[in-house]
Amino acid sequence: MLTRGLALLGAFGPARPAMTLSQLARHAGMPLSTAHRLLGELVEWGALERDDTGSYRIGLRLWELGALAPRGQGLRERALPFLEDLSQITRENVQLAVREGTEVVFVERIGGSGAVPVLTRVGGRFALTATGVGLVLLAHAPTEVQEDVLGGRIERFTERTVTDADELRRMLADVRVNGFSISDRQVTMDALSVGAPIQDERGQVVAAVSLVVRHGTASPHTLTPLVRTSARAITRALAEGYRAG
Amino acid sequence: MLTRGLALLGAFGPARPAMTLSQLARHAGMPLSTAHRLLGELVEWGALERDDTGSYRIGLRLWELGALAPRGQGLRERALPFLEDLSQITRENVQLAVREGTEVVFVERIGGSGAVPVLTRVGGRFALTATGVGLVLLAHAPTEVQEDVLGGRIERFTERTVTDADELRRMLADVRVNGFSISDRQVTMDALSVGAPIQDERGQVVAAVSLVVRHGTASPHTLTPLVRTSARAITRALAEGYRAG
Repeated sequence: MLTRGLALLGAFGPARPAMTLSQLARHAGMPLSTAHRLLGELVEWGALERDDTGSYRIGLRLWELGALAPRGQGLRERALPFLEDLSQITRENVQLAVREGTEVVFVERIGGSGAVPVLTRVGGRFALTATGVGLVLLAHAPTEVQEDVLGGRIERFTERTVTDADELRRMLADVRVNGFSISDRQVTMDALSVGAPIQDERGQVVAAVSLVVRHGTASPHTLTPLVRTSARAITRALAEGYRAG
Repeated sequence: MLTRGLALLGAFGPARPAMTLSQLARHAGMPLSTAHRLLGELVEWGALERDDTGSYRIGLRLWELGALAPRGQGLRERALPFLEDLSQITRENVQLAVREGTEVVFVERIGGSGAVPVLTRVGGRFALTATGVGLVLLAHAPTEVQEDVLGGRIERFTERTVTDADELRRMLADVRVNGFSISDRQVTMDALSVGAPIQDERGQVVAAVSLVVRHGTASPHTLTPLVRTSARAITRALAEGYRAG
């Protein structure tokens, strides 16, 4: 029954933030009566809430619990002052992301005033192969994860998206050597992204930060030192957090 | 088993963000063997993660799900630009909160540079009776909630905390008439907070915003229009969000 309860929760996603009983039963693959009983328990506990139309939505208690995730809210809170500095200085999009399996999860996103539109949202997922943060996280992922991603189908977003595994391997080697990534019009034809790694206190890459700018408006050579400096400042802040307990 | 799985999740909180198997079994009131099996399911699904020491923590997947909560992340994302404006203009602490039952839950908090230290954290809870946001949310809560709070024990934080139910009733009536709240040294002796209500598209008060400043440094009469203007701007942004779907 725990598995079935989790299946109901797992039916929610960015594309399905609100669902009716019958939609939930169908997505979680269980009879209406079972879904109805389990949803009652989830609402009672506060994991779900019902809106005016009777649809189910994620409840505040689950949000409160999620705020305790060290790789989500904990990382976000330590990094936020540095992300805000980077956003105010550049007036561009700033993104913070972690890797979950073979995908990027965006933990924070600050939109620059008048900056190029980006496709991502907080709590949203994206392919590791195309974005600036994704290339950093993939470059520092365990070999099995890299081979899993590079051996599978590599999604194309634009005519500039690199989908050749060998070319991606060379790009990832460059990221490791240079300490930054550049995604040039690989996600949308109007955007360029520069990413840099954030490390934990043992030197493991646990997150990545990026600037996303309109293609042609700023040189990667200007952006790279800014993003790397910000990533190092966040790395230091994380280390201080660990020492402070 | 769903109830028991939720009991394990519910054992986590701001004071207990990481727990061992035996701590979790004890807090959730179940045998070690049951806890071990259910924790395995929760880790497998991604609701929990294990850290280097083997302790359990809230997993990234639960954070992702929590990001779909309309009263948490959804509200936060719509309000954030206005909160940042208020923070940059005043350089003081800005807080955004909602009511959950008889408590305040803080959805966002931006610390001003050099501002007075505040006790709250994102995802944290607090009494409705003492803070600026709490007084706003209590003033607009259903009568049963008000009577539940005012009829129970009212927590004292400082010598200035109002704990008399009749005096609080008068303060709540003032909040409704004036459109703002003032909490003067009721939480800590060095802080004053001014709160204002945020409404949904039907005029229901769904959240509150506040400025928290060092007592004696700024007059409430200066702060009140700023907080009220910000609350109205967020109210408008929510209404636009509803119209846009």
